[in-house]
Amino acid sequence: MRVLAIGAHPDDVEILCGGTLAKCALRGDKVTIMIATNGNVGSAKLTKNEIASVRRKEAEASAGIIGADLIWMDYDDEFLFHDRETRMAFINAIRRANPDVMFVHGSSDYHPDHRICGEIAADCRIPVTVPLILTEYPAMARIPHVFIMDNLGGIGFEPEFYVDISDVYDTKCRMLRSHESQDAWLQYQYSMDYVTFVAKSSAIRGMAIGTEHAEAFRSLPMYPVVGGPSLLP
Amino acid sequence: MRVLAIGAHPDDVEILCGGTLAKCALRGDKVTIMIATNGNVGSAKLTKNEIASVRRKEAEASAGIIGADLIWMDYDDEFLFHDRETRMAFINAIRRANPDVMFVHGSSDYHPDHRICGEIAADCRIPVTVPLILTEYPAMARIPHVFIMDNLGGIGFEPEFYVDISDVYDTKCRMLRSHESQDAWLQYQYSMDYVTFVAKSSAIRGMAIGTEHAEAFRSLPMYPVVGGPSLLP
Amino acid sequence: MRVLAIGAHPDDVEILCGGTLAKCALRGDKVTIMIATNGNVGSAKLTKNEIASVRRKEAEASAGIIGADLIWMDYDDEFLFHDRETRMAFINAIRRANPDVMFVHGSSDYHPDHRICGEIAADCRIPVTVPLILTEYPAMARIPHVFIMDNLGGIGFEPEFYVDISDVYDTKCRMLRSHESQDAWLQYQYSMDYVTFVAKSSAIRGMAIGTEHAEAFRSLPMYPVVGGPSLLP
Amino acid sequence: MRVLAIGAHPDDVEILCGGTLAKCALRGDKVTIMIATNGNVGSAKLTKNEIASVRRKEAEASAGIIGADLIWMDYDDEFLFHDRETRMAFINAIRRANPDVMFVHGSSDYHPDHRICGEIAADCRIPVTVPLILTEYPAMARIPHVFIMDNLGGIGFEPEFYVDISDVYDTKCRMLRSHESQDAWLQYQYSMDYVTFVAKSSAIRGMAIGTEHAEAFRSLPMYPVVGGPSLLP
Amino acid sequence: MRVLAIGAHPDDVEILCGGTLAKCALRGDKVTIMIATNGNVGSAKLTKNEIASVRRKEAEASAGIIGADLIWMDYDDEFLFHDRETRMAFINAIRRANPDVMFVHGSSDYHPDHRICGEIAADCRIPVTVPLILTEYPAMARIPHVFIMDNLGGIGFEPEFYVDISDVYDTKCRMLRSHESQDAWLQYQYSMDYVTFVAKSSAIRGMAIGTEHAEAFRSLPMYPVVGGPSLLP
Amino acid sequence: MRVLAIGAHPDDVEILCGGTLAKCALRGDKVTIMIATNGNVGSAKLTKNEIASVRRKEAEASAGIIGADLIWMDYDDEFLFHDRETRMAFINAIRRANPDVMFVHGSSDYHPDHRICGEIAADCRIPVTVPLILTEYPAMARIPHVFIMDNLGGIGFEPEFYVDISDVYDTKCRMLRSHESQDAWLQYQYSMDYVTFVAKSSAIRGMAIGTEHAEAFRSLPMYPVVGGPSLLP
Repeated sequence: MRVLAIGAHPDDVEILCGGTLAKCALRGDKVTIMIATNGNVGSAKLTKNEIASVRRKEAEASAGIIGADLIWMDYDDEFLFHDRETRMAFINAIRRANPDVMFVHGSSDYHPDHRICGEIAADCRIPVTVPLILTEYPAMARIPHVFIMDNLGGIGFEPEFYVDISDVYDTKCRMLRSHESQDAWLQYQYSMDYVTFVAKSSAIRGMAIGTEHAEAFRSLPMYPVVGGPSLLP
Repeated sequence: MRVLAIGAHPDDVEILCGGTLAKCALRGDKVTIMIATNGNVGSAKLTKNEIASVRRKEAEASAGIIGADLIWMDYDDEFLFHDRETRMAFINAIRRANPDVMFVHGSSDYHPDHRICGEIAADCRIPVTVPLILTEYPAMARIPHVFIMDNLGGIGFEPEFYVDISDVYDTKCRMLRSHESQDAWLQYQYSMDYVTFVAKSSAIRGMAIGTEHAEAFRSLPMYPVVGGPSLLP
Repeated sequence: MRVLAIGAHPDDVEILCGGTLAKCALRGDKVTIMIATNGNVGSAKLTKNEIASVRRKEAEASAGIIGADLIWMDYDDEFLFHDRETRMAFINAIRRANPDVMFVHGSSDYHPDHRICGEIAADCRIPVTVPLILTEYPAMARIPHVFIMDNLGGIGFEPEFYVDISDVYDTKCRMLRSHESQDAWLQYQYSMDYVTFVAKSSAIRGMAIGTEHAEAFRSLPMYPVVGGPSLLP
Repeated sequence: MRVLAIGAHPDDVEILCGGTLAKCALRGDKVTIMIATNGNVGSAKLTKNEIASVRRKEAEASAGIIGADLIWMDYDDEFLFHDRETRMAFINAIRRANPDVMFVHGSSDYHPDHRICGEIAADCRIPVTVPLILTEYPAMARIPHVFIMDNLGGIGFEPEFYVDISDVYDTKCRMLRSHESQDAWLQYQYSMDYVTFVAKSSAIRGMAIGTEHAEAFRSLPMYPVVGGPSLLP
Repeated sequence: MRVLAIGAHPDDVEILCGGTLAKCALRGDKVTIMIATNGNVGSAKLTKNEIASVRRKEAEASAGIIGADLIWMDYDDEFLFHDRETRMAFINAIRRANPDVMFVHGSSDYHPDHRICGEIAADCRIPVTVPLILTEYPAMARIPHVFIMDNLGGIGFEPEFYVDISDVYDTKCRMLRSHESQDAWLQYQYSMDYVTFVAKSSAIRGMAIGTEHAEAFRSLPMYPVVGGPSLLP
Repeated sequence: MRVLAIGAHPDDVEILCGGTLAKCALRGDKVTIMIATNGNVGSAKLTKNEIASVRRKEAEASAGIIGADLIWMDYDDEFLFHDRETRMAFINAIRRANPDVMFVHGSSDYHPDHRICGEIAADCRIPVTVPLILTEYPAMARIPHVFIMDNLGGIGFEPEFYVDISDVYDTKCRMLRSHESQDAWLQYQYSMDYVTFVAKSSAIRGMAIGTEHAEAFRSLPMYPVVGGPSLLP
């Protein structure tokens, strides 16, 4: 199976479905991580270009841990918009990964880049299959199934299903720790300890299913429904 | 796996998850159909006792088609209430079937017996495991996972997952046709053709997933979540 | 009465409210069908211009069956966006039809073009009445009432009222069959039989009200509410 | 047409749909007001029996203003429960009125008697048609259409349609003023002026549709839907 | 201020609002904890009477830590129902505490005793003020404001406001640890460590507001709204 | 405290939270009113520039009544869109006011300018704190708390908390009356009396809490929640 996780910023995918991706990789899926923005405002000291460069390297390191491909879209952090050019770029990037399954941000997420990134990604699931929309990569043969990822705090997100990630939780933490600059930035800007912070989300979802750590998902509730939770690891 | 489908009236389970039960049986599950009321108002000509007796035989015939056990609770049709005696009877009956998975009516269903039956059934999932609640059958070792069934017309029901029943649709129809009295009653009371009528529900759910016929479900969105859609056939 | 149905693609209006429009025409309403995109990706063999040209002719033929006017907006299929130019074009087109009632796509629809088309259309209901917004056609005297159409599969759509279209169902099918290229395209791309497919939607809505075929609607739940279901045929 | 409005307490029906009933009466409908409880706690000075007797007379006077029949169920105020005896009493009373249309309290209403009364009433719409359920009055020929009434403050109630009651607002006020004891009680217990208080509800609903006074309704969103807003005056 | 927290079982109140109650006590409120059932099934070894007796002592010890009064309703665990006798007993008990503010279970809670307990409690807020409803304790002068407590896992609960309990978290843990039998029972029945388990709930709510531990609440969304979040500590 | 109310048009803020702002001013808050569009279509006789100029003067007069600053964004009325330039302009303007608390339009509001203005404003709450996003005014030190304002008619808006504005209602009316051109325009275009019209909204919200006039709010339900209703006057 080919799995594509689409995050707004470097580290979003690790936070919200890093354990699930690790399990996908373990069962032999071809995993791709696609990142919409370059994270170029996430620093208190570096310039935009410097921090973007740092974050790309961190994202590559993180993806490398599970053998995932990285697609770096390079849009400006905090300024993702849903226009024609961006829609086309997403269609092309999704076709490059050619996924059976996509993980995307949901509409109740707290960050505008997340919501907009999720909207663009979900809106591409049909156009990626249309031959007359021409991009660098060819049209896909099938509409991918779309899973919506949880959000920070779980506010306004009602899980439909859970993936127990307790056995790959260390891998998820290693992926998170690859994003060294974010640890520093969150400490500086919001006084938060990165991995401890993220652990609260997987702990409360694990509580629901009686395990240490879990990640929660919904399916996009829209016609056509081409797959379902049986695709999850 | 042991599967228990709990319907308010004879034929409810066939309508809402008959195809799924047929698939469960095919993969080797132990299937039980539990029916709360005896259907004793479903006739234009027979007495209450006569029609209840007819409907029990029809329910047995239907269950027999897929080799399912039948638990006949014998409450009065149209007058199911959620009181202590009924709760205890449900606990005992569920323990008898000892299911890993239960299918129950949901809260947006159109018929009061359906809603109340679903409420009682779901409310029993924890008490069935409590040893100090004494019934004829012993306490179960595990809380069963609860799936909520679709309703007639699909109004107020948003599917989380689907089971493609196209390959067992004939079996579902044979189960439905076992309820001969209902065909007559629905013709008389509401001028509806039974199997044609029910087919509209599985057709619209099949439309969503691109097959001829499907049945749709949700998981009970409540702690603890002890299973999930991977339990579906 | 003047009725305007606004669809994202050629044939959307026929699928979702074709029967209702046929009944409007029968009672003497002036019916206009406005189509946002030209359907220029809906082919496996033709060029964009060729298929757009074919689809316009099909749309004209379909509208002609009920004596409706056609407004052809000619935006690119799969790439409708809500920007100032498009908003102005919609304001002008709506003023041309000068409707008492508009039918628009809803926010839970599966296709991005549908959702965006519905959003633009609904957002125009007040500006169309404002004299200082200058377009080719003059400002309307009254805000039109807005009905939201059902979607494919009926997922996330809770009907408020229904129109029984059984007696005009043949007309609806003739309108659908005017879109010959779509039948071919859906066969090629998704292996679906067009009219059979669409019939599932009107069958499930008909089931709710006890008829063969029906279409379902909601009113836009927003101030000011200038009309209501009494405007429906 | 035969119209039945079912309120939990004397004056509920007047507050929530009194104008609509007045319009029904004006167009020639046979209107019945059914009141579940006797209002026997609504006094600071009288005994339970005394105040219940006063309120029945007030309810009769109010119903008389529009020529409506009154069905007095006589349950204890604040202690309405949904049990078998009460369900049967409601079935019988509804059959007595034999309505085409029922107005009932909704599930988001603030008062437990209202919610429970609305639940019982709605749950009777199918049993009233079943011949084998024997009561004093015979089974009805058709399931009545059910409208859900607004609530005080309009919290958690999203209107589907409105009835402009501006032209019968004086009649509504006269009906309200018939409940003299309530004016006194609300002054004593909650320091509220009765008619002024109720006017706020019809004013905000009128605001939505651009009139002085309106009442708002929803249809019960459940299979089968046997009528709709075209039944409203 | 007088604060009343109403839990279905011994320890529910501590889990869901123990920190908030500790803060109420610290600011000088009169705090009462009212427990609907006696917890008489919560043991693998003791008889019903024995475990009920143990749990009452534990509940008293827990309440004692913050100087709260305890009202012990003594209904059977797992079998709370909303009938007239129970409604009257709740009215009397609430009048005894005479609260300005009540904390109750919500309708999306996972346990039937919780949901039913919350429904009864909320439904009493008006009757407790009605003089003609006679109980041992006199009618209250004012309707109390009702806060709805979070649930285990936070599923289906959208917080409206939060109380930062970090500074009283130790007190909350001491209250929880007073319920020694539950620690043993949860270990035996569900293999859960009690305090660790509960900490996950306050951690995720704390995450939302940037503190270590928090508890989340909603106001009952029903007329009349007699107070609000300014009443929280 | 610094309070920023962001309205789409001149007078929106007065209608939806004018009383609350008056109370903020009375307790010593620094109040800023920011207006996205210049209201340049709100006239039947003047040119766009003329009416925009009139409305700015009216807005200044209104703000002056409570000593509030005015930020005039000058976008075209009816044509506010969420693009990068507008997002940047909002970030800069919000930083100028540097608020602890923001009042914004909600997503169920009836007017597209309102919804889009509210979306841009809420989406800025995080970027305003990011140093690498450079604007005329410096990055803010803290994310402001966001309150969502009620809408006209209260449709689709469920209040979480209320502010009793009875004692400042005269001030609110004076602010409204400052917008003289709107009174004329609403009379001309929709035959509405301005202050009478707006009073219906505060009357129904006051009804809920038992006062003459109130305004209703929700908190933005998104991580991080940096404040809450204790910030309200």
